[in-house]
Amino acid sequence: MNNKVTIAIDAMGGDFGVSVTAPAALQVLKKHKNVHLVLVGDEKKLKAQLGMRNRGNKRLLIKHASQQVEMAELPSKALRNKKDSSMRVAINLVKEGAAQACVSAGNTGALMATSRFVLRTLPGIDRPAIMKALPTFDENKKVRVLDLGANVDSYADHLYQFAVMGSALTSAVSGIKSPKVGLLNIGEEEMKGNDQVKHTAQLLSDSKHINYMGYVEGDDIFAGEADVVVCDGFVGNVALKSMEGMAKLIGVYIKKELKRNWSSQLTALLSYPVLRRVRKSLDPNQHNGASFLGLQGIVIKSHGSASQKAFAIAIEEAIIEVEKNVPQRIGEEVGVILEEAEFV
Amino acid sequence: MNNKVTIAIDAMGGDFGVSVTAPAALQVLKKHKNVHLVLVGDEKKLKAQLGMRNRGNKRLLIKHASQQVEMAELPSKALRNKKDSSMRVAINLVKEGAAQACVSAGNTGALMATSRFVLRTLPGIDRPAIMKALPTFDENKKVRVLDLGANVDSYADHLYQFAVMGSALTSAVSGIKSPKVGLLNIGEEEMKGNDQVKHTAQLLSDSKHINYMGYVEGDDIFAGEADVVVCDGFVGNVALKSMEGMAKLIGVYIKKELKRNWSSQLTALLSYPVLRRVRKSLDPNQHNGASFLGLQGIVIKSHGSASQKAFAIAIEEAIIEVEKNVPQRIGEEVGVILEEAEFV
Repeated sequence: MNNKVTIAIDAMGGDFGVSVTAPAALQVLKKHKNVHLVLVGDEKKLKAQLGMRNRGNKRLLIKHASQQVEMAELPSKALRNKKDSSMRVAINLVKEGAAQACVSAGNTGALMATSRFVLRTLPGIDRPAIMKALPTFDENKKVRVLDLGANVDSYADHLYQFAVMGSALTSAVSGIKSPKVGLLNIGEEEMKGNDQVKHTAQLLSDSKHINYMGYVEGDDIFAGEADVVVCDGFVGNVALKSMEGMAKLIGVYIKKELKRNWSSQLTALLSYPVLRRVRKSLDPNQHNGASFLGLQGIVIKSHGSASQKAFAIAIEEAIIEVEKNVPQRIGEEVGVILEEAEFV
Repeated sequence: MNNKVTIAIDAMGGDFGVSVTAPAALQVLKKHKNVHLVLVGDEKKLKAQLGMRNRGNKRLLIKHASQQVEMAELPSKALRNKKDSSMRVAINLVKEGAAQACVSAGNTGALMATSRFVLRTLPGIDRPAIMKALPTFDENKKVRVLDLGANVDSYADHLYQFAVMGSALTSAVSGIKSPKVGLLNIGEEEMKGNDQVKHTAQLLSDSKHINYMGYVEGDDIFAGEADVVVCDGFVGNVALKSMEGMAKLIGVYIKKELKRNWSSQLTALLSYPVLRRVRKSLDPNQHNGASFLGLQGIVIKSHGSASQKAFAIAIEEAIIEVEKNVPQRIGEEVGVILEEAEFV
């Protein structure tokens, strides 16, 4: 575990750019002595931001990039016109082997398009997917959900590949030997679900490589029964954001109620540490860092509005995936499946 | 508003059957003097449940039905084999004009299939949809979301019809003249969304009958910008249940934190009324009663596990829709659109 790990950071990405990414990098370096970081971006800005704090730190490099991908920029345009962007250069470092992973808080679409173009997908994987670990009722257990929006209009074959990738990552990172995979579905329809889900269920049931546990409904995601939940990117993205919306809504109502009268204001005072701990456990920032799975390299997407702490968590996610050889693990799993398919 | 309103109640439906539906009926009758209720179900059970409390109440009728649809029964089987079920007989009463609406906490799929078979859809409507009002950041504003699971694999035409229906209901019930309609989408993809959403957006933009405001993401549903949010039934059902799952998760974490030590136990004591009020504002039971839109009649689906209070709220939703002539309003709106289309 103490081998040297090098991570390339798109230092210009996200809502706050270098003012978040640079201090987060220093924070991570302090904690992880085997980690080297390359901050990619505007050299002047980075030097100004780091100031004296970086003097003599051999584990922090600055790599200049003259361009920056805007948050609202079209991915295709970024890919075409921003060949010296901090994002592109950071991904190039992974491609060249100078870094083992890239972390960015930038434009998700551009990051996905560029990662896919530069790093390519693993053999046997048609489409990369976005995966995130979410909390469950059991504090010690996480559930990993994919795809969260890399793809829309996916076919059953793609969802099956998502299951293989999610399973391989979970087994590599969490040490669960045969992660339970659930398929996101609804309970209302006669035969349950749409055509995509029914077909996927068939593929998953038939596979001896997946520990398929059956359908999972939206309100079961957090139950912790499943280690991995697979869904179409459109559905997954809506589900994730609906959860975030509900969390915000509850926050708003609690705040309102705590301001209502003097006794609730007293309660507010007392409940502050309690609510802070709850927020800390459930805050998306605390679970920051979505994995782009299925690429020949590790790319972690941080939330655009991540704080320094949250961005540091995303970097740590990258470190874990490097140390656990996630792409290799996925590649091996897919390789076995492909090999067997050839003999059928 | 004080015209006589008659509602048929599937008294056997839901997890608790007559022990919830009968007391809820009495509760509603007490409050609404213009309302008559018909409890449909096992006469003996209903009489035993009501006991003396119903003596002389001319606004409460019991209508015997010899069968009952099970919660897990296949809709097609219920439709074929349960012609004297409490659910079927209650819907028949609406068809015959003996009641103006039906309320059931029973099997959603069976209720939808039976409603559709008995009542038929309105001319110009291909598929009914399930709609629910959800809270927003603004306590005084609701957002109505449809479809929540009546249909999967919907086409853009269907989503357009959902927009027309949701708009007509919102305008009838809330008095908003030209409700703002949003289309649920994700923000990640280059051109945004899947084929279904893109095509629907085109139809909504082109329509002069819809006050289309554009795309809404999962975390914007509660923002209160949109009065109506339209989506495919699969997506809507996942979104709704993901929200419920998150609410449950937060509840679990708050409870855990409040039990942690003596100071948080004191906080728990003090914060009880605050949290109770928050729960009351956001509890799905407080917003109980999903509308089946697009039928030639009013059908309200209560949550299966609804309490007496919650079931009474679902009955009240039916009363409002009767008083506001919701199916007629939808029919008129669709009629105008169809007529114009003929002249194109």
